[in-house]
Amino acid sequence: MTSFAIVGHTARTDGAFSLNDLPSGGGRMDVLCRCVNASLFLSHTLRRDVECAIVLLGPPVPPRTVQFSGQKVRSLNPDERSPAALIKKALLLPCGSEFRESSEGVSVRKGGVERLVREHRFGVLDERGTDIRTADVVPDAFLLSDHLNFSADEETLLSACPKFSVGPAVLHADSAITVLLNELDRRGAGWK
Amino acid sequence: MTSFAIVGHTARTDGAFSLNDLPSGGGRMDVLCRCVNASLFLSHTLRRDVECAIVLLGPPVPPRTVQFSGQKVRSLNPDERSPAALIKKALLLPCGSEFRESSEGVSVRKGGVERLVREHRFGVLDERGTDIRTADVVPDAFLLSDHLNFSADEETLLSACPKFSVGPAVLHADSAITVLLNELDRRGAGWK
Repeated sequence: MTSFAIVGHTARTDGAFSLNDLPSGGGRMDVLCRCVNASLFLSHTLRRDVECAIVLLGPPVPPRTVQFSGQKVRSLNPDERSPAALIKKALLLPCGSEFRESSEGVSVRKGGVERLVREHRFGVLDERGTDIRTADVVPDAFLLSDHLNFSADEETLLSACPKFSVGPAVLHADSAITVLLNELDRRGAGWK
Repeated sequence: MTSFAIVGHTARTDGAFSLNDLPSGGGRMDVLCRCVNASLFLSHTLRRDVECAIVLLGPPVPPRTVQFSGQKVRSLNPDERSPAALIKKALLLPCGSEFRESSEGVSVRKGGVERLVREHRFGVLDERGTDIRTADVVPDAFLLSDHLNFSADEETLLSACPKFSVGPAVLHADSAITVLLNELDRRGAGWK
């Protein structure tokens, strides 16, 4: 199982956003939607061995975590509105501290980065990190940030995580996920 | 200059589609929008040395080609609706066989793949092609297809193009563009 988690520092936590306005009204929910789809989609199928969690830290009730299971999710299409509709539905469901399923393969709970870091051995991206192509081992879990940098508190939580670089250019989170999955695909299939 | 071109076999050619319904009403315009953004966006900036052309072959007046210049484009955001709005504006502009600018850095003309193939030395993607990581030379122009395969006529036009593979998994066109750009970034910066 490969796991991605993406922190959405401004993403709304109540489902009160329009699918027609994900960037502004959704608090850059568009960034998270692209990350979900980059994590889960192959051409004409889904990556059944990948899960993707998004951590929503915007108003009014942060933190919330919405998790997509590649194995179980249904009715997910590759356009941004499709995961957004599932996120909206998840956020409209009352939840506690354990995951509660809002749609097939989509679950929501209270809580954020601190708990995720206890549950996974994340790698994180850093321009000065080890090049993923030359790394002896590439983790099967990565935590990424949205369009903003990790906060100081998040940096502290992540200080022990191994750091990797995907290349000389600084990419959007969804593009970084695509490059990471390409590296994992190649290693899994015995390609260079 | 790096060039990408993507064939949208069902994409509408008259701008009569809603930004709220790119997949269906737009004839999978969402696929092309993701390809434009995968071609042009870096984190917090644009790839000024990349251009991206989309070939629209849907009703009512195919073929049309809309070109985005990374050097010149303005008002482009990374959500799908943003390039879609610029495409819509381009398609509403009467045009002839030469590019006519519809917004800064966005131009439209009549014509499609046949002309593009005469103008560029494209590489194409093929599962049995040369692995881009081991290729001696990676082209600076690639032609990709949307969610459908190239037609028989397109295959004939492209028969002389060198063929490359980006990895063991079959990816969406926008993900393939991201992996290709990662390879070009690495080669350009002297990384492995």
